[in-house]
Amino acid sequence: MGEWWTPLILRDVFYGVHRFDDILKHLGISKNILTDRLNTLVEQGVLRRVPYTDRPPRSEYRLTQRGSELIAVLIGLMEWGDKWLPNGNDGEYAVALHQPCGHRVHARLVCDECGDVPTGDVRLRPGPGWQDPTFPVA
Amino acid sequence: MGEWWTPLILRDVFYGVHRFDDILKHLGISKNILTDRLNTLVEQGVLRRVPYTDRPPRSEYRLTQRGSELIAVLIGLMEWGDKWLPNGNDGEYAVALHQPCGHRVHARLVCDECGDVPTGDVRLRPGPGWQDPTFPVA
Repeated sequence: MGEWWTPLILRDVFYGVHRFDDILKHLGISKNILTDRLNTLVEQGVLRRVPYTDRPPRSEYRLTQRGSELIAVLIGLMEWGDKWLPNGNDGEYAVALHQPCGHRVHARLVCDECGDVPTGDVRLRPGPGWQDPTFPVA
Repeated sequence: MGEWWTPLILRDVFYGVHRFDDILKHLGISKNILTDRLNTLVEQGVLRRVPYTDRPPRSEYRLTQRGSELIAVLIGLMEWGDKWLPNGNDGEYAVALHQPCGHRVHARLVCDECGDVPTGDVRLRPGPGWQDPTFPVA
């Protein structure tokens, strides 16, 4: 993810901008960069190509399940930026809504037992894939 | 955030690795890069310096509220990586726990009205800070 255009492309696809020319126009990105980023996102299984016309053969871009779950992370990052790095006084650039009911959606940390929890109550502990001989802190 | 070491430094501070020499040793990062990244994170209000000894004068690094809320985003990114880009078969590198009760914490999208919702039920809509004359999709 350490690359500027990738989250913006994913956000566009999530908005519903699915076609190469539409993303190109909306983001003002170069053709070469967009082609490269889209190919990488397809290779990584974040986006998939879905044909929408045969003559000429053309495909649009859709989120995979993997990509859809990454969007949840991007919504969290977007909310953090809106709160802590506001761009002027205009307010949020976009808001996430729960489509069936129309209410706001927020990225939160949820405890399996207690429901929503503040970050200050959360600690990281080593998991089974921890490779270091010792955890940095007891 | 478009930079490799920054999330790893934040994760270390969140683990409880607060001191320059400990972060240096744990991450195997160069002194110059660590100094630069820590200075930037302090300037951005994500970390703050807290003195822990007078002789010699030394400070350690703690998360601000802004940084603490960014950790919630990083936990979401970490979970996404563990699920979709697993590093071998060893399982998760680290797990987030709700300290008071000891149960797992997960990053989720939560509707103000309905509680947890799947990403597929979420749509982005223009907010008050939207600058484009038209939203890309109706």
